Amino acid sequence: MTNQILENNLVNFLTNNFARSPLQINCLHQSDAEIIKTCGGNLIAVTTDSIAEEIETGLYTDPYLIGWMAVTVNLSDLAAVGAEPLGILISEIIPPAFEKDKLDRMQKGISDTCKNSNTFVLGGDTNSGEKLILTGTALGTFPGGKFLTRTGCRPGDLLYASGKLGKGNAYAISQLLNAGEGGIDYLPAARLNESNVIRKFAGACMDTSDGVISTLDQLMRLNGTGFKLDEDWISSIDKGSLELAEKNGIPPWMLLAGQHGEFELLFTIPPEKEIDFLNKARQTGWQPVKLGKVIQDVSIKMKLYARLRTINSATIRNISFNLKEGIQAYLRSLLKIDREMR
Amino acid sequence: MTNQILENNLVNFLTNNFARSPLQINCLHQSDAEIIKTCGGNLIAVTTDSIAEEIETGLYTDPYLIGWMAVTVNLSDLAAVGAEPLGILISEIIPPAFEKDKLDRMQKGISDTCKNSNTFVLGGDTNSGEKLILTGTALGTFPGGKFLTRTGCRPGDLLYASGKLGKGNAYAISQLLNAGEGGIDYLPAARLNESNVIRKFAGACMDTSDGVISTLDQLMRLNGTGFKLDEDWISSIDKGSLELAEKNGIPPWMLLAGQHGEFELLFTIPPEKEIDFLNKARQTGWQPVKLGKVIQDVSIKMKLYARLRTINSATIRNISFNLKEGIQAYLRSLLKIDREMR
Repeated sequence: MTNQILENNLVNFLTNNFARSPLQINCLHQSDAEIIKTCGGNLIAVTTDSIAEEIETGLYTDPYLIGWMAVTVNLSDLAAVGAEPLGILISEIIPPAFEKDKLDRMQKGISDTCKNSNTFVLGGDTNSGEKLILTGTALGTFPGGKFLTRTGCRPGDLLYASGKLGKGNAYAISQLLNAGEGGIDYLPAARLNESNVIRKFAGACMDTSDGVISTLDQLMRLNGTGFKLDEDWISSIDKGSLELAEKNGIPPWMLLAGQHGEFELLFTIPPEKEIDFLNKARQTGWQPVKLGKVIQDVSIKMKLYARLRTINSATIRNISFNLKEGIQAYLRSLLKIDREMR
Repeated sequence: MTNQILENNLVNFLTNNFARSPLQINCLHQSDAEIIKTCGGNLIAVTTDSIAEEIETGLYTDPYLIGWMAVTVNLSDLAAVGAEPLGILISEIIPPAFEKDKLDRMQKGISDTCKNSNTFVLGGDTNSGEKLILTGTALGTFPGGKFLTRTGCRPGDLLYASGKLGKGNAYAISQLLNAGEGGIDYLPAARLNESNVIRKFAGACMDTSDGVISTLDQLMRLNGTGFKLDEDWISSIDKGSLELAEKNGIPPWMLLAGQHGEFELLFTIPPEKEIDFLNKARQTGWQPVKLGKVIQDVSIKMKLYARLRTINSATIRNISFNLKEGIQAYLRSLLKIDREMR
């Protein structure tokens, strides 16, 4: 079922002949970070993610944001498996002409996210190259022994998000469509504190690094269950993002469909644990956002234009896979899907 | 003392404002891989290295070699700290036009080195980008608790290599100067088995990823001690590499000076442990290569053109830092140093 998605297919092709470590707990696609048993019997989490396409497409231009995101995207994967960060390694490909003060700002972005998340740069590598590329690899541990994966959804479970949604795509609109004034402050922090609570209650968990609908689609394929969003799903969207989308003629649901994530966690809570979960969350000063529920039918359903609709999430994911044709072509494809539903 | 080297300066600049983890055992520059204490108290090793400049300069063109090296350079760092690999993560930047059979060959190179070293690809990331770039991050453990760093040289200690030297630079000559027939078979394997023995006896250890003289130079700066190579240092050089250098008019010592490494380990053995060390090595079917000894004087000395000379290793390292000017310019600079000694 995961093989209807072009990105999954590429990963399957690339790893086709790789032997799997007997010490690896998770299967392919099954978790945001790899979960490995070390010789002492303890588990560690490890994940790697590059910031490359975001720079090449012009989505990220501020060196501070680039540094910040190289750390955040990886810490967010740790949060999604319920790990506490040990630190991060960063490999940097730096163009010879990259100015020193930009380099400084980029390193400051790295350093600030680390401080913000109480973690450290452990090491790295530098190479000279034509295009700026940062690759982070984050390491984490599981002090309580408990971890989260993308599997564990049961029909009837409640679907929550760690925070308001849509900011990643609103930022992309403001940056790429040149929306000008009223831009979006986009510096997401990995949801590590929230993950501490989620770990104790959740079934499945995954971060929204590729946007909400892609995340739900992947969870759906891995679990063989679907999702129905609550009727007022629009209340789960960040207000500033909604306003920016409206100003640019982008329908609200596309803030969930676009591929640039807000790095929130999506997770499922069994109904019998919901009260305890919400109490625990409140104690830490955190307000989880209810989004919908897990359903038996393997589809993503939401009320759109006065009807409950099944979202064609495979198409939505696959059109983003060829972003090479440019952001305008991508946006046109999404708007075409929107028109067909109206 | 490390700040006379341009590469060290760049690393110092980049990490200037980074806080150091209290769980990190090694200092900056002090080891080939980072050594971190996990929550269970066990140590893990982690290291990251990109294959980027090697592709951009045309040093690596065969996709199989590129995949192979993305793993080997990282496992070699684990070997240098005496760690046993848990596995590796690979982040790949793949140009849209990169052919599927090349991709296949590259993944085969990755898979084959892993098998060869008894380890596994644990995970990864893929991005589309203009230039092919592979970033590996290897993880290792220390089952016996013992680790190696680049420090621990004492005057009088013996300097050994894990194998014959010069193959990295001989390969570079054959690949970049287009030596044609009689090329060099270059597929180095990380010296993990040898590291198992070295760990029990050595003072300092470092891999020759940047060539022998750069490695000795870094060890010299970190330890505040020097090295004197044995009079017959030429016998430590791989025979095929010597022949290829001769055919191309490259003096033998430049096989140690060039920046493309053979990924052997250089390490120091206290004289009182030498017999036990050699016995243990022989038992595993391994023949270490004696190279010289540690001296009090902070310099690298070797007999060249009938005289014992101090090698200007800072200059040798720094001219390689601007390889952007091309391999021919780099070679001319090395040959100029050679002429001045004749």
